[in-house]
Amino acid sequence: MKARVAVIGAGPSGLAQLRAFQSAAEKGADIPEIVCFEKQANWGGLWNYTWRTGLDQYGEPVHGSMYRYLWSNGPKEGLEFADYSFEEHFGKQIASYPPRAVLFDYIEGRVKKAGVRKWIRFETVVRMVTWNEQTRKFTVTVQDLPKDHCYSEEFDNVIVASGHFSTPNVPEFPGFDRFNGRILHAHDFRDAREFAGKDILIVGTSYSAEDIGSQCWKYGANSITNCYRTAPMGFKWPDNWEEKPLLEKVDINTVTFKDGSTKRVDAIILCTGYKHHFPFLPDDLRLRTANRLATADLYKGVAYVHNPELFYIGMQDQWFTFNMFDAQAWWTRDVILGRIKLPSSKQEMIADVEDRVAREDAGKDAHDAIEYQGDYVKELIAETDYPSFDVDGANEAFFEWKEHKKQGIMEFRNHSYRSVITGTMAPAHHTPWKDALDDSLESYLRTASPVAAE
Amino acid sequence: MKARVAVIGAGPSGLAQLRAFQSAAEKGADIPEIVCFEKQANWGGLWNYTWRTGLDQYGEPVHGSMYRYLWSNGPKEGLEFADYSFEEHFGKQIASYPPRAVLFDYIEGRVKKAGVRKWIRFETVVRMVTWNEQTRKFTVTVQDLPKDHCYSEEFDNVIVASGHFSTPNVPEFPGFDRFNGRILHAHDFRDAREFAGKDILIVGTSYSAEDIGSQCWKYGANSITNCYRTAPMGFKWPDNWEEKPLLEKVDINTVTFKDGSTKRVDAIILCTGYKHHFPFLPDDLRLRTANRLATADLYKGVAYVHNPELFYIGMQDQWFTFNMFDAQAWWTRDVILGRIKLPSSKQEMIADVEDRVAREDAGKDAHDAIEYQGDYVKELIAETDYPSFDVDGANEAFFEWKEHKKQGIMEFRNHSYRSVITGTMAPAHHTPWKDALDDSLESYLRTASPVAAE
Repeated sequence: MKARVAVIGAGPSGLAQLRAFQSAAEKGADIPEIVCFEKQANWGGLWNYTWRTGLDQYGEPVHGSMYRYLWSNGPKEGLEFADYSFEEHFGKQIASYPPRAVLFDYIEGRVKKAGVRKWIRFETVVRMVTWNEQTRKFTVTVQDLPKDHCYSEEFDNVIVASGHFSTPNVPEFPGFDRFNGRILHAHDFRDAREFAGKDILIVGTSYSAEDIGSQCWKYGANSITNCYRTAPMGFKWPDNWEEKPLLEKVDINTVTFKDGSTKRVDAIILCTGYKHHFPFLPDDLRLRTANRLATADLYKGVAYVHNPELFYIGMQDQWFTFNMFDAQAWWTRDVILGRIKLPSSKQEMIADVEDRVAREDAGKDAHDAIEYQGDYVKELIAETDYPSFDVDGANEAFFEWKEHKKQGIMEFRNHSYRSVITGTMAPAHHTPWKDALDDSLESYLRTASPVAAE
Repeated sequence: MKARVAVIGAGPSGLAQLRAFQSAAEKGADIPEIVCFEKQANWGGLWNYTWRTGLDQYGEPVHGSMYRYLWSNGPKEGLEFADYSFEEHFGKQIASYPPRAVLFDYIEGRVKKAGVRKWIRFETVVRMVTWNEQTRKFTVTVQDLPKDHCYSEEFDNVIVASGHFSTPNVPEFPGFDRFNGRILHAHDFRDAREFAGKDILIVGTSYSAEDIGSQCWKYGANSITNCYRTAPMGFKWPDNWEEKPLLEKVDINTVTFKDGSTKRVDAIILCTGYKHHFPFLPDDLRLRTANRLATADLYKGVAYVHNPELFYIGMQDQWFTFNMFDAQAWWTRDVILGRIKLPSSKQEMIADVEDRVAREDAGKDAHDAIEYQGDYVKELIAETDYPSFDVDGANEAFFEWKEHKKQGIMEFRNHSYRSVITGTMAPAHHTPWKDALDDSLESYLRTASPVAAE
C-alpha cells in the first residue's frame, strides 16, 4: 500500500506543501499519495476574496478575512518564492506592494505550473481527525459540501495548513449589547466604502487596526479613532485620526475611554486578532499555542511533539510568510520521505521547542524578531533542496519597510525594494497608494509611464 | 447501568424535553440520566439575545438570529405552555405580542420551577455523534469550550433539539462582490437603528422580511424595498415601502430588479431563510428535510425512521411552536420510557411519513396548514399525559391574527386574544406597537392605565 498524506487547507501553506511534494516527484522521487482537503471552492486561502461573512452557502464558517482594496502591507520582496519569482510570473518586475488580486495571481501561477490542482478536494470540510495508536494511522472524516456526504479515509500523515487568521478573537466591552450601530470584527470587514462619512472606532493596534483604519480613511470615513491597551501605534496619522487609551464602555452611540474622554461613533471595528482554532482536532492532536514566532509544541516549528506523524505549517506569527511556508513544507516533506530523521526521543523535540522559545524571548525588539525568523527560515532551507536565497537581503527589506512606515504611514507603499531572488529593483508604482482607488490587477500592472489620475 | 439520554440544545425544544422528563420523574417515574449539551452560556436558544454575529468568543458559529426590539410576530395565545400559563408566570394576564425579553422570562420561568438546569452542560458544543450497531449505543463527542477540552460519552438515545433557524441560507446575486454597502443575512441583523436614514433592500417575503423591514421602518429607515421571487407579501405598506420583483443584479450601489427597474440602496438584508444544518451528524444520522410541516424521515414528526433511537424535536416549519415542542417532547419521552411502542417495521414508519406529507400537500392554504399542524399537536398530546388544551381555540387565534395582519401590518400587534389555557382575555397593550420604542420587560409589563409617551 502506498503511503497517504492528508493536507488540510489549500491556502499559501497547503499549496506550499503540494508544491514541495510535486517538486520532489518531478526530480524522480517516489512520493506518497497526497490528498488536500479545502473547504472553499477555490485555492488561495485568505487570498481568495469573498463578499460573504459569518457563515457561507453551506452553513460553514467563512474562512476569508480578506477585504476589498487590500494591498500587501509588507514589501513583496520579503515573501517572494525562491523557486518562482515575480518576474517569472509577470514577465517583468512589478512594484513592491501589490494588491490582493496581484498576489492571488502570483500564488496561483506557481501551483498551476506545478499541476497540483488534481490533488485537491474542494468544498470539502474536515469534520474530525483521530489517531489510532494500534494501526498508527489517522482517520480523517470529511464532508463533501455540495454532495452533502460525509466519509472517512485513513492516512499515514496529516499536515494541518488551515491557517490562523481566520477565526476571530472577539472580546466584549460593557454596553456592546446596546450599541446602536454596527459592531464587527476585522474578519467580517469587506468594503471600506460602507463607512464613508462615518465616525469609526477601531479597537486594537496591530496590522488589522493600522490597515483597516487606513482603508477607511482612504475611502472617505469622517474620522478614525483607535484605542490601545498598552501603547499607541504612534504613526504620524492624518488630522482626522486620533489614538486613545482602551475602550472602557459604550453607551448607545457614545464610547468612553480609560482616560475618561468620550466620542460619538457610528461603528466599532474590533481589530483584536485571531485564534488558533481547530474544531476538527481532538485533545491529543490539537495545537494550543500563543500567536508568536516560537510556537508551543512544534519541533522545528512544524512537527507536533506529542505525535510527530502530524505536522503544522504556518502556525507562527509572521514576518516571513510565503517563503517561510515553503521552508516548512519542504522540510516536512523530507521528514515524510525519510530524508530527514526526527529525534528518537520526545524529550529532544521538547528541548528544541524550549530553546526556540528562549531565543525568541531573548530578543528585544522588532529588529531582533525579524532576524530571529530569518534565521529560522535559513535553518530549515539548509536542510532541504529548497533554493537558497539571500535571507539577510529579505531582512533588509523588512528593516527598510519599518523605517518607511515611520516616515509616513500613508506613503510607505510608494517605496520600492530589490528582489533577493532576481536581484532587480522594483519600479515605482504609477500612482501613490492613497490616490489609487482602483485595486484591480489590470490597474496595478499598467506600466508606470502614463501617470494619469485614476 | 442506568440508561442515558443526550439532548442537544437547551432552547425551547431542548427545554421542553427536559421538562417532559422532569415531569415524569415528579410523578414517580424512573427516568434515564439526562445530559443536555448547550453551546451557549445560557439557555433559551434563539431567545437568548447576543450582540455577537458570525463567530462567537470561542470561534464557534453564533447560534442566535435574534435582534433587538423583536416582539412576538404571532399571538402568545398560540404558543402558551399548557402546563405553565402566562398568568401563572407573571401573576396576571399580559398583552398578546410580548417582546423578546418577556418571552425569554416566560420560557425560563417554567424550567427554573422544574429545576432542570443541573442537567445542562453549558458552553459545550457537540462535535460528532456516531452510532455503534454492535453495542446499540451512540458516542457523543463534545468540546467544553472554556476548558478547551474534548471528550466522548455513550448514550442510549440522542434527541436533537438544536433548532433550524440558526444557520442562514445565503444566496448570491450578480454584483454582490462589488456592492459598496453592507450585505447581511437576517441571521446577522441586530439593531434596526444602524439603518436609520438609510435606503434598505430586503430580499425575501417570509416572516424575517416582513418583520425586519417593519423594524427598520419603525426605527427610522428612509425607505424599505423588498423583492419577491413568486409574489409580493401584499400588505398595506407605509408610503416609503415598496415591493419589487426579484433582484437581478447589483452594480456598486444600484440594484436592478427583474422588471428592469432600479434603485439606489445603502444596505441589502437577505431574508432568505435558514437551513437544517447538523455538522455533528454523519450520513446515517443526519436529517435532510425541506422546511415544511411534514418533515422527511421522522415518524410522528420526531423519531428518525432510519434509526429510531434518535429523535428530532422542532424540525418542522411552524405555526405552533412552544406547545408543539412540548407535545413532541412528551411523546418522545414516552417512547424512551417504554410507554409508547414504535412500529416494529421501518416500512410502517415510512408509511406514516408519506401519509403526513400527502395530507400536508392536500391542504390548499394557510388556514388548512394551521389546522393540519393543530391536528398534529392534538394527535401527539392524546398519546401522553401532557395537559390537554383547546387546540381549536389556538387555531382561532392564528386565524384572527392572519386577518389582523391583512387589516394593518403595522397595527396587528395592538390586538388581544383569549388564552386557551386559562380562558382569560389579554388586555390591550398600553402603547401601539409602532410607538413603543422601548422593548424592555419592565416597559411591557407596566399596567395599561397611564398611557404616557415612552
